[in-house]
Amino acid sequence: MRRRAEGLYDGEIADGWDIGGNANGGYAIALAARAMADAVGRPPLSLTAHYLSPGRPGPVEIDVDVLRSGRRMATVAATMRSPEADVLALLGTFADQTPGGPSAIDGTPPELPPIDECVLAAPPLESGFHHRVRSSLRPVDAGFRAGRPSGSAEIHGWFELPDDQPIDAFGLLMATDAFAPVVFNRSEFPVGWSPTLELTVHVRGVPAPGPLRCRFFSRFIENGMFDESGEIWDSAGALVAHSRQLALVPRG
Amino acid sequence: MRRRAEGLYDGEIADGWDIGGNANGGYAIALAARAMADAVGRPPLSLTAHYLSPGRPGPVEIDVDVLRSGRRMATVAATMRSPEADVLALLGTFADQTPGGPSAIDGTPPELPPIDECVLAAPPLESGFHHRVRSSLRPVDAGFRAGRPSGSAEIHGWFELPDDQPIDAFGLLMATDAFAPVVFNRSEFPVGWSPTLELTVHVRGVPAPGPLRCRFFSRFIENGMFDESGEIWDSAGALVAHSRQLALVPRG
Repeated sequence: MRRRAEGLYDGEIADGWDIGGNANGGYAIALAARAMADAVGRPPLSLTAHYLSPGRPGPVEIDVDVLRSGRRMATVAATMRSPEADVLALLGTFADQTPGGPSAIDGTPPELPPIDECVLAAPPLESGFHHRVRSSLRPVDAGFRAGRPSGSAEIHGWFELPDDQPIDAFGLLMATDAFAPVVFNRSEFPVGWSPTLELTVHVRGVPAPGPLRCRFFSRFIENGMFDESGEIWDSAGALVAHSRQLALVPRG
Repeated sequence: MRRRAEGLYDGEIADGWDIGGNANGGYAIALAARAMADAVGRPPLSLTAHYLSPGRPGPVEIDVDVLRSGRRMATVAATMRSPEADVLALLGTFADQTPGGPSAIDGTPPELPPIDECVLAAPPLESGFHHRVRSSLRPVDAGFRAGRPSGSAEIHGWFELPDDQPIDAFGLLMATDAFAPVVFNRSEFPVGWSPTLELTVHVRGVPAPGPLRCRFFSRFIENGMFDESGEIWDSAGALVAHSRQLALVPRG
């Protein structure tokens, strides 16, 4: 990601960040967010992306519009474009985390088996997105891949970057879209294309080192759509990201 | 709201839609959403707003940018400006609801006392936002107004428009921001200004006639911020809107 001019950045959807030829959504969002963050000198705090068309490996341009830049918070809009089409529209508030103050957390990190007893989202030698990040599913949530959906619209698992790279706010954006759609675990739906319309991520903290515990679930499947909420917890037990998306149920 | 030119609308934050002089956020969002919907001929499906500055009664201009307009969905960005300052930045997907398909709902409408046993958010003869919409709180959730917070970061209540006006997608946008911040019911926080940074609403259905049952709650209060999730259920028991916001805890 390179700044070409005020508000204009060049990026590259790298080979190997795709799933079946389409760039992973979280990866594309993280790439755009880096340009937005560069323009205001702050990481993402709340970021919404709407998907306009699938991203393909190759060059992209990110058009960044700083709408407001205050002492603590900045509001930024952006569009990511490939030579063929607009890929993403984004709107977010960017700010550093300010730790402290009263805390009240209703929830706990998901209980997970050790990583080596979980099921890697893709075999380690395969190329593509799941070679670049490691998402490891709780075995009960991975049965959909063998035609045995759990029956519950949820997926729990671990998220890591290769070589123990630390995970920052941009890594958190990737984590929120690094697992399969939770509706794959409901037998009403085929395991097929399930396009996300919109994803919003609240970055709630700076992760402590170590793999992240992730919980994704849907509560409202109706009228051809479903919500998917995500909670990302760090190794110290803190909630560090909270995501929600609206997606279309797969039609097979 | 009147179209002045392609992509440019004139609106008016009417007197009486304010809370202490600032326009209610949901009202301002609904006003902007009407302009966005007019530009693409479809109601909001998923809409995100970031607050740039408080809206005051008076004229506003809404700048609408149609990013993509497909057969079924359209993606639209907008900015609402007053003569003094930018008020709101918005990004959304607009589409008609398409009822049908498999449905799986994990949740039920909140159990509420009859409306006349609930506590109106404002006395009926007062002017201002709560005179134009009727939000009626479950009594246990209204104690914060008398210095007796319930201790639980939640508020349940009824939402209606005056004179039994039907509630459409724009009414749903208003409903998601028509109650007090749920952290008022936690004794750690004063009842004071609690600015919303970002609100995202998923419109999930067309409400059946009658008052709406609303549930708002926060699960993650930390680092000076809190999430607030909202569920809006219609009189037939269907979930018709699902909101989430990120806000700053009040500092007194």
